[in-house]
Amino acid sequence: MKILVLNAGSSSVKYQLFNMANNAVLASGMIEQIGEKESMAKIKYKDADDVEHKREQKCAIPDHDEALKWMSQALIHSGVIEDLNELDGIGHRVVQGGASFQEPAMVNEYVMSEIERLIPLGPLHNPGHLAGMRVAVHQSPNVPQVAIFDTAFHSTLPKYAYMYAIPYKYYDDLRIRRYGFHGTSHRYIVKEAAKYLKQDVNTLNAITLHLGNGASVAAIENGKSVDTSMGLTPLEGLIMGTRSGDIDPAILFYLARKRGLTLDDLDKMLNKESGLKGICGSNDMREITQMAEEGDEKAQLARDMFNYRLKKYIGSYSAVLGRVDCIVFTGGIGENDSGVRLKSCENLENFGIIIDPLLNEMRSSDILQISAPDSKVKVLVIPTNEELEIAMETMEMIEKHH
Amino acid sequence: MKILVLNAGSSSVKYQLFNMANNAVLASGMIEQIGEKESMAKIKYKDADDVEHKREQKCAIPDHDEALKWMSQALIHSGVIEDLNELDGIGHRVVQGGASFQEPAMVNEYVMSEIERLIPLGPLHNPGHLAGMRVAVHQSPNVPQVAIFDTAFHSTLPKYAYMYAIPYKYYDDLRIRRYGFHGTSHRYIVKEAAKYLKQDVNTLNAITLHLGNGASVAAIENGKSVDTSMGLTPLEGLIMGTRSGDIDPAILFYLARKRGLTLDDLDKMLNKESGLKGICGSNDMREITQMAEEGDEKAQLARDMFNYRLKKYIGSYSAVLGRVDCIVFTGGIGENDSGVRLKSCENLENFGIIIDPLLNEMRSSDILQISAPDSKVKVLVIPTNEELEIAMETMEMIEKHH
Repeated sequence: MKILVLNAGSSSVKYQLFNMANNAVLASGMIEQIGEKESMAKIKYKDADDVEHKREQKCAIPDHDEALKWMSQALIHSGVIEDLNELDGIGHRVVQGGASFQEPAMVNEYVMSEIERLIPLGPLHNPGHLAGMRVAVHQSPNVPQVAIFDTAFHSTLPKYAYMYAIPYKYYDDLRIRRYGFHGTSHRYIVKEAAKYLKQDVNTLNAITLHLGNGASVAAIENGKSVDTSMGLTPLEGLIMGTRSGDIDPAILFYLARKRGLTLDDLDKMLNKESGLKGICGSNDMREITQMAEEGDEKAQLARDMFNYRLKKYIGSYSAVLGRVDCIVFTGGIGENDSGVRLKSCENLENFGIIIDPLLNEMRSSDILQISAPDSKVKVLVIPTNEELEIAMETMEMIEKHH
Repeated sequence: MKILVLNAGSSSVKYQLFNMANNAVLASGMIEQIGEKESMAKIKYKDADDVEHKREQKCAIPDHDEALKWMSQALIHSGVIEDLNELDGIGHRVVQGGASFQEPAMVNEYVMSEIERLIPLGPLHNPGHLAGMRVAVHQSPNVPQVAIFDTAFHSTLPKYAYMYAIPYKYYDDLRIRRYGFHGTSHRYIVKEAAKYLKQDVNTLNAITLHLGNGASVAAIENGKSVDTSMGLTPLEGLIMGTRSGDIDPAILFYLARKRGLTLDDLDKMLNKESGLKGICGSNDMREITQMAEEGDEKAQLARDMFNYRLKKYIGSYSAVLGRVDCIVFTGGIGENDSGVRLKSCENLENFGIIIDPLLNEMRSSDILQISAPDSKVKVLVIPTNEELEIAMETMEMIEKHH
């Protein structure tokens, strides 16, 4: 079974083709700067002898239609497929599924109109997803297509966890509530954790930390998400590359009055100029670590604040869950930054959380257990794979509908 | 020693006169609706035979000067003092002390100019405090006066706890950071807790929950505040009577765009129309409890959300502290609502927190220990007394300066 995973943004399309028999990636790539004078299109694939090939092309790709045509020709040219109709399914990543989508959905006109209706709640992502989806349906009408929502995994939050304490009418009228994001990643790593711990995922209590340029935590009870740090939008929660995460909302009123900033200025400031970058000038954690080691005080502060916020969420979600079986780190920072893992779990012995400093320094492309043998809570590092999760959910959905 | 405590707002003055020999309240009262057509002035006092007397007067009191004159005459008339100069000190409550005041300050021109300079960070409170202070200094120039700041107790927060992840220049230029409030109450109850537990306050780790119409939590390590839920302003943190507490700041951008709300509308909405009131229409927890018992779903939701937010902060600050000796509930809700106490500590056995449901239902005007005997963390209910704390700090300060 061959499943193509598409992650279409407003000016880019990322793709990955899986052979579901062994979860192998047959080909992957991306088309960037769609609509600009010079776009960049890439493909990477393995031939029958398992030799890796790469191809990059600079050319003008005006829209998603041309982008998917380039991809199709590149896939066919590389020999991994002979025809697009050979695909068993296409899985589309969709960031905002709102309250409409609590699980994957077979793509059809109704589903696309719902994704369109949700654009105000996902203005940066849903338009691009929709453009890619419409083109893919048009170009491959006979291939079953599935929409996989970043929000769906968090649809199990109880109401007292997803509601905000603002006038109730804004929930009634505008569906303002916590949605949460990174759901595909949180779901993937909690399933992987259950497999690794040889525990039924439906009995597993976990705190999953997806720490990349965007970052979120989820509290998972019996395999289901019961709380998560991102909210109506991906701005809330942890400190991120350029996003502030939690702040006193009154800071906005204060800044508007003192500095004459408009709501658009403030939006841009909190989303693009805050977080690690706002504190120390860089949003690259590797660079920040380097700077801190060289004595840069703001870089050290950025790391300390990042870790402290993490620790507070670990404590908070430990209370939410009552019993925690495991904590899982994933994402670029979670998988690679042993300092972040150590500091965010420091002095939590009373929570049953003890990291073994030596295990924590080990490197692996596979799952790593970094908790000490006497740590009641297992601490794991699990590389996330959102594309594979999308491919698996797409396959399940298609099999269900056959 | 007689100390007068003043809490001057923009249109009200509350006062309490203490005999510091036995911490007894000799007289107390308030003047409200200052500057309106009809003001209301009240005094309550005990005579030499310990009989309580009350007097209320409706009259036009145009400003703070007249308000303090009414108070002086009422105090003299009641016989608790013969002359204002008989006072050993006046303690003034000041909400916002910013980074300037890490402890009480003897009132002088410089201190008043600093309190004035901090008005932008405390626009609702500092102007009234200052008006009261100037009049009191003018009327009683020979009585030593002390300013006691709500923020001072939180001046021990480490930098990684008080900084926000927004561009650093806003800290440099505008001193935007977490200040925290209710400090006088948090300080008072942690000292009371240490006395009750017969432990040196400088070794005590506590989580103190001040739950009134405004509400905040503090994490106290070795007697010092290391984190607190209110931030730059009293809007952040817990769900309060009419304040939202923590939200996704992007909700403001969304509402502005969808509903055309201005920053002033949003400010008013989050501070005055949100919180418990926003969820269920009432900001009176007793009323809400009643409504919930009668089957009102939104009232139940408001309670559930309030308790859930509390529990998350208890977890978060438990992680911050590593070891927690006691949790202390205070304030109108904290002292009287056994349901809030029970629910916010539910299923925290793994944190060493176990409330005894029978002890929790007991009523006392004194300190109550409600944790079960096998609860590692002691859970206490302690009536707060910010006026007494202000009086005591005023006395200490005056003695230090003699």
